Amino acid sequence: MSDSSVIAIDAMGGDKGLEVMLAGVARARRLHDGLRFLLVGDEAAIRAGLSRHPNLSQASEVIHAADVIAGEEKPSQALRRSKTSSMGVAIDCVKQGRAGAAVSSGNTGALMAMAKLSLRTMPGIDRPALAALLPTLGDNDVVMLDLGANTECDARNLTQFAVMGAAYARIVLELDRPRVALLNIGSEDQKGTGEIKDAAQMLRAATHLPMDFTGFVEGDRLSRGDHDVIVTDGFSGNIALKTAEGTARFVADLLRRAFSSSARSKIGFLISRPATDLLRNHLDPNNHNGAVFLGLNGLVLKSHGSANEIGVATAIGNAAKMVKSDLARRIAEDLSNIDAKAAA
Amino acid sequence: MSDSSVIAIDAMGGDKGLEVMLAGVARARRLHDGLRFLLVGDEAAIRAGLSRHPNLSQASEVIHAADVIAGEEKPSQALRRSKTSSMGVAIDCVKQGRAGAAVSSGNTGALMAMAKLSLRTMPGIDRPALAALLPTLGDNDVVMLDLGANTECDARNLTQFAVMGAAYARIVLELDRPRVALLNIGSEDQKGTGEIKDAAQMLRAATHLPMDFTGFVEGDRLSRGDHDVIVTDGFSGNIALKTAEGTARFVADLLRRAFSSSARSKIGFLISRPATDLLRNHLDPNNHNGAVFLGLNGLVLKSHGSANEIGVATAIGNAAKMVKSDLARRIAEDLSNIDAKAAA
Repeated sequence: MSDSSVIAIDAMGGDKGLEVMLAGVARARRLHDGLRFLLVGDEAAIRAGLSRHPNLSQASEVIHAADVIAGEEKPSQALRRSKTSSMGVAIDCVKQGRAGAAVSSGNTGALMAMAKLSLRTMPGIDRPALAALLPTLGDNDVVMLDLGANTECDARNLTQFAVMGAAYARIVLELDRPRVALLNIGSEDQKGTGEIKDAAQMLRAATHLPMDFTGFVEGDRLSRGDHDVIVTDGFSGNIALKTAEGTARFVADLLRRAFSSSARSKIGFLISRPATDLLRNHLDPNNHNGAVFLGLNGLVLKSHGSANEIGVATAIGNAAKMVKSDLARRIAEDLSNIDAKAAA
Repeated sequence: MSDSSVIAIDAMGGDKGLEVMLAGVARARRLHDGLRFLLVGDEAAIRAGLSRHPNLSQASEVIHAADVIAGEEKPSQALRRSKTSSMGVAIDCVKQGRAGAAVSSGNTGALMAMAKLSLRTMPGIDRPALAALLPTLGDNDVVMLDLGANTECDARNLTQFAVMGAAYARIVLELDRPRVALLNIGSEDQKGTGEIKDAAQMLRAATHLPMDFTGFVEGDRLSRGDHDVIVTDGFSGNIALKTAEGTARFVADLLRRAFSSSARSKIGFLISRPATDLLRNHLDPNNHNGAVFLGLNGLVLKSHGSANEIGVATAIGNAAKMVKSDLARRIAEDLSNIDAKAAA
């Protein structure tokens, strides 16, 4: 695949450090021909690391940034170093038009705050939301948002997330009218918080939007494939996403124990290994890495803090796809069309 | 196992109707020798159903109740029929001392409202919470609460849930100082809602309680076995529980697909079947059915609305164990000891 996009990389963010970030970028470089990178962070450390990736060196420019935002730092603190930190400078590359997207494995709250301050939200959007594609049993992945950017949300926020999520699904899943549901603790009308009930009322009334509101969905049906977009506040979204990740790992661990419990099951495992390897591959969060902040005037992707080399490469691949499909501009267009229709 | 407990059964609640409830009770009767039942609901229908379970008839008394609480009914509506509904009459059997516990597969909100009105909360407890034991990779199950009884909770509610959950863990898991954590979207101090941060502060200060507060836990670590009690509001708890159930089913479905993807993997599956059957059995929610309302002066258990015969029997088995261990009285005792210590 040839791809002329430029991606800005926060080379210093993430739990696993510079080495894994660079290995991930080098992997993405091998997978996506023509992609170019702005590697932002401690210049000397990056140049030293690059000596192990000659192929990446040729496709990269190093941009020095002296500061690193720590994982436990408060967003308000981090904001003071927007101009000097690897995270802030990477986002600024998007603002200046030097890169089509920025990717960071760093502190989510800080990334959100900096991206919002630097790129600003699209007209009509109060807050950006963190969205990702999750695997389902159906033909398509499902878009889920917010995954942790906004701890508490009101009905207006949730409704805007629905509109942005639907626009995203129309582009990445190529659907005319995505089926949009609100995450709740029951499917009956009277279930849930006041915010969710109000959002449901607003979405039910919004029949002019290019999407179908399908009501409430419970946690046990997220991956059934009967919805295209699942909308929730950042607290519940984060709990659901992480619980799903943890449960998948839990089941995989139990499966490993079960397969090693007897000679017979070990033999069965060896024989069916190609099938179980495929499954493991399908469930590995590194193969679904890269959540995007929707609603900003520019593309910023959050890679999982504990992502390995494969995960970092997946996030960069997703960023390249979004740049190529001109995602931010198309979502903005979609939102303004909706506003125009609503006014008419 | 000989067990002289009497369990009141809401025979009409649940998505699957009277037939599955009776089959479940009959199964519990076979598994637990000496258990006796008060079967509450439409007398004619129950007697007709009992003709298929002669063994159960001998151990049961039928109590007529004309009304059934529907699944989508509001708790406030349901409360008006506390005296005439199968759910309300089953709870009243506990209040009157005729049964040691009541089990219902019906509407959770209605069950909670009726149980609270009839049995009242223990001294010092504002609201009951729905608690269940979930499987982990560790030596013990983990107690999780609230699983959906209280949609929104303040710091005081969360702190009381922690104390009740710890008392429950001390009894059912036989631990001296259970490790108690709050479910949150990060492990750092500044993460989460104001309610969670305040609850953490209160629990950190409560060093006189017979438990160890271990801070925040994220959704991906629920089943790692490094906590004994996980405390959350009913909204997040319900989302986490159902997401875990749904993900376990999702992985099992993918595994089935993987195993049937080729002749080779089918053979491997047949060979390792005893191991995968054990795993399926371990993950089947019917084998973990029966959540209890903690904090009431009496035992009321919620069986999953979609529980099958095995699930209903599991919930009844759990109820019998709780009656036998005198759970409600021992939690009350634990709470009053804590109060006495705090006052001293």
